[in-house]
Amino acid sequence: MLQLATLNAASPAEFTALLDGVYEHSPWVAMRAWNLRPFTTLAALKLALVQAVRDAGHEEQLRLIRSHPELAGKAAVTGTLTAESTSEQHRAGLAHCTPEEFARITQLNATYTERFGWPFILAVRGPRGTGLSRAQILATLQRRVDHPADFEFAECLRQIHRIAELRLNDKFGVAPELGNTVWDWCEQLATHSEPAWAEKGELTATYLTDAHRACAADIAAWMRDSGFDSVEIDAVGNVVGVYHGRDLQSPRLLTGSHYDTVRNAGKYDGRIGAFIPMACVRALHRAGTRLPFGLEVVAFAEEEGQRYKATFLGSGALVGGFNPQWLEQRDKDGISMREAMGQAGLPAELSAITALRRDPARYLGFVEVHIEQGPVLNTLDLPLGIVTSINASIRFVGEIIGMASHAGTTPMATRRDAACGVAELALFLERRAGADGDSVATMGLLEVPGGSINVVPGRCRFSLDLRAPTTAQRDRLRDDVLAELASVCQRRGLRYTVEETMREAAAPSAPDWQRRWEAAVGALGLPLHRLPSGAGHDAMKLHTALPQAMLFVRGENAGISHNPLESSTADDLDLACAAFHHLLDQLATS
Amino acid sequence: MLQLATLNAASPAEFTALLDGVYEHSPWVAMRAWNLRPFTTLAALKLALVQAVRDAGHEEQLRLIRSHPELAGKAAVTGTLTAESTSEQHRAGLAHCTPEEFARITQLNATYTERFGWPFILAVRGPRGTGLSRAQILATLQRRVDHPADFEFAECLRQIHRIAELRLNDKFGVAPELGNTVWDWCEQLATHSEPAWAEKGELTATYLTDAHRACAADIAAWMRDSGFDSVEIDAVGNVVGVYHGRDLQSPRLLTGSHYDTVRNAGKYDGRIGAFIPMACVRALHRAGTRLPFGLEVVAFAEEEGQRYKATFLGSGALVGGFNPQWLEQRDKDGISMREAMGQAGLPAELSAITALRRDPARYLGFVEVHIEQGPVLNTLDLPLGIVTSINASIRFVGEIIGMASHAGTTPMATRRDAACGVAELALFLERRAGADGDSVATMGLLEVPGGSINVVPGRCRFSLDLRAPTTAQRDRLRDDVLAELASVCQRRGLRYTVEETMREAAAPSAPDWQRRWEAAVGALGLPLHRLPSGAGHDAMKLHTALPQAMLFVRGENAGISHNPLESSTADDLDLACAAFHHLLDQLATS
Repeated sequence: MLQLATLNAASPAEFTALLDGVYEHSPWVAMRAWNLRPFTTLAALKLALVQAVRDAGHEEQLRLIRSHPELAGKAAVTGTLTAESTSEQHRAGLAHCTPEEFARITQLNATYTERFGWPFILAVRGPRGTGLSRAQILATLQRRVDHPADFEFAECLRQIHRIAELRLNDKFGVAPELGNTVWDWCEQLATHSEPAWAEKGELTATYLTDAHRACAADIAAWMRDSGFDSVEIDAVGNVVGVYHGRDLQSPRLLTGSHYDTVRNAGKYDGRIGAFIPMACVRALHRAGTRLPFGLEVVAFAEEEGQRYKATFLGSGALVGGFNPQWLEQRDKDGISMREAMGQAGLPAELSAITALRRDPARYLGFVEVHIEQGPVLNTLDLPLGIVTSINASIRFVGEIIGMASHAGTTPMATRRDAACGVAELALFLERRAGADGDSVATMGLLEVPGGSINVVPGRCRFSLDLRAPTTAQRDRLRDDVLAELASVCQRRGLRYTVEETMREAAAPSAPDWQRRWEAAVGALGLPLHRLPSGAGHDAMKLHTALPQAMLFVRGENAGISHNPLESSTADDLDLACAAFHHLLDQLATS
Repeated sequence: MLQLATLNAASPAEFTALLDGVYEHSPWVAMRAWNLRPFTTLAALKLALVQAVRDAGHEEQLRLIRSHPELAGKAAVTGTLTAESTSEQHRAGLAHCTPEEFARITQLNATYTERFGWPFILAVRGPRGTGLSRAQILATLQRRVDHPADFEFAECLRQIHRIAELRLNDKFGVAPELGNTVWDWCEQLATHSEPAWAEKGELTATYLTDAHRACAADIAAWMRDSGFDSVEIDAVGNVVGVYHGRDLQSPRLLTGSHYDTVRNAGKYDGRIGAFIPMACVRALHRAGTRLPFGLEVVAFAEEEGQRYKATFLGSGALVGGFNPQWLEQRDKDGISMREAMGQAGLPAELSAITALRRDPARYLGFVEVHIEQGPVLNTLDLPLGIVTSINASIRFVGEIIGMASHAGTTPMATRRDAACGVAELALFLERRAGADGDSVATMGLLEVPGGSINVVPGRCRFSLDLRAPTTAQRDRLRDDVLAELASVCQRRGLRYTVEETMREAAAPSAPDWQRRWEAAVGALGLPLHRLPSGAGHDAMKLHTALPQAMLFVRGENAGISHNPLESSTADDLDLACAAFHHLLDQLATS
């Protein structure tokens, strides 16, 4: 097995030879990474290789891509594959395609190559390293052939880095053990989905449904199995595991994230924030290690606000943020939250819920690990990022009201077209937020209700989702957007309604906790990348009572989330476990 | 009773005295109209009064509006109403308001007056002259209080002219008899609505539903009742009535329009195009008059393409335009058109349908009367308009495909927002058509399918409806719009699909037939206003086989159509009957 020490001591020629085959037919990658020695960690070596490719020009990158064989194509039989390629394609079962599958792959490959001018690259061993199914490979090819070319070029390079990562793991004889554990828990938990969605192979586990309760039961079992000293499901359905410190009275570190999902969700959003600490506790317990502080891991029951409009219910309950009126709220089937709680065997009493409020004096702080849910780390090829602040946000739903009229007979000059008013607003959002640093503004809902092809829209519904790194910046953005809405309607003779549906202040990270994450990431040999969180997280709720800081894990597929394509790799999850472990070590020795 | 001859011979003072009370407390209107004598018809007198108001400045118009009492308000008890006002409000039952109704009217009146600075004016005797219900009055007040101010100012003047029209009818002791007949048929036919819509008090009668078949039965009965010599329901459900000429072999005049409706429709669209000729035949039959040519009136079964995508099925069948594949098309409940025809007792055989094709040699031509479905005549205060051409049109449905991503975490610069692409296209449509004379372009369907408030739209569906007075002009418009779609998507890294769903060439009116309509309108003492038809009509289909020309009847409420607010007046319908009669006379004497 290859050792880092060997590599660090190697000449350029030796170094390149030792890394032969990691980047297909492209020894120049290793050669350039040699300059970045010494490597303190395997992760650092991987990043150095990535950096060598990033620093190369477009032409060299294109050559690198073109050095790869066509998937399951002729290269496999003409012997131009590296041994690794052959073995990987074999492992993915591509040698055993049916004639129909082979024909389909061949046809898609041809379309792909014709469209982009390079072969389709996919790390066929997949995010777990154990291989994608043929169906997954076909679906990926089918999906990616529709990508914009610049996006697909970058994706091919990312896949090449993933192939290299797996080959390096083999050369070094290492496996991401904690990462695999987290990965496998995510897979297992995702088997619990509400029937209507499970039928379609989709994951949906909203608050207190059977699927959701099955999740809680699994998490509790895995916590017990991992060596937590106490495990309970609390009055709102949070799964709470405590791993005692050496002194039962010492303050605890609070951590966790949510296990409920949106509809047709990914498997990682929220869940890894409970599983990563659980994997660490499992390792501590197996090693017989006790920390000088307690570790309380909470898998929050509700964050997504899907079944009931009660976003952040789970974490909110820990800081006295449970709204009693929620109990009477009914889901689409008319079941009140109180009834749902009763059916789930929870006390369904307000007193039991308010008792969940934590005493801040008993806690050191709150940390949360979360998948980024955005493209930043994926684009930068970085596995981990340090969150500086959870952005302030505000949401509105609104409607512009004009006058419906006949599309053929109403002269352009006399129209009062509600959709054109909304179109102007959508483009203003884009310009205004784009000119404002890290702010984002989105019109996610847009609809001419009951529209017809031949009727000038009399009404157009829309939503606004505005976020900015500080509360003040968000307020300026909001003021400008609402002023534009008024001005567009004034100018066009339209009316409008607009209703605020959500508002959250910014939650900047506590500096000392942010520094601990930075130290942890740095210790892994990874560069520090700081970024705001555009999404809301449970940490936002805990922020009101405790110092908090978050760590982001890169999301594959451009960081897509709230979507079945949401993905991570066992290696990235393993790095997150290592970072979490390092943060615990820092606290233990401080 | 007042006579035109008396008025034409009157001095200014006599004239004004004779018309006292027609325009509330505003003798200046009559005084100025005196200059426009002599009046050959009552319609010409009405228009002269309208013209006097149109020629007055905004200040005088405002004073005219303010001369009117507040509806059911204090004026009614302080005696500042004219005798006419009192009587009209009494007839509308406003003297018998419940306390709740009175309070509601008072409150809405106050809101209205505060918003606009003048009292709410409504011709409470309504479009039939027999009075609006209190509920209708309240709904109108409720609706109009939301109008843009400039629009509402013009609407008040229109209501004042309608009040004047009804007062003049009383003074002259005339009633629009044929117009009333047409009106009453429209009311009666509108009682047949599909159950799901009827429940809501809405009118929907799509192809071959029970409601639609009840319509056909009524129309056939009324045709027989009116003295048509033969009446039948043909193989596609058209109701065909023939009033023989003196010579059974002489060519016929073909006329008619459709009786099917859109969903939640108005009562006049299409239907008056059958009823106006029917009312004329009734009058001819009662007078025992035979024309030297046959008159064939067809109430077409299908024009709107609602239940099946088979627009203009009814009139198309007369020119060999029935698409055999339509028979297999299924509605949303899975019922094929062939099955629907069978259930309706039609032969459901292609041979029976193709046999409906008319031999052009047996017809003089085709004329069609239709409600304008647009604001032009309403804005100009003209009851009738002469159609110069049915605009060329083309429709598309499309979708822009970007990449769905998290609204909070996707930086503005890296988004591929499908909705923003569509927004750009919507605004381009508006600019491009607005700069192109009589062209119109509309995005009536606009939707982010499955959108969420916090997801950057990955898909956005839209429709395009493009129309222009000539086919060539439409094609240039189409080319520019499709080029812009491609360019927007190219620039933004988006993909798109776009599918043409309908295309109709322009159908210019046959010059000699258009001149007959012009002569008919002129004979009524009305000015000639020529305009293109922005909407498609059955005449477009007949155009492929016969010379055709259309007459438009003003639509109230800014000409709104495909909407329950679609409206006409018995007086306008009566003028249309008179024009139709005149056209028959011209043909008879030519």
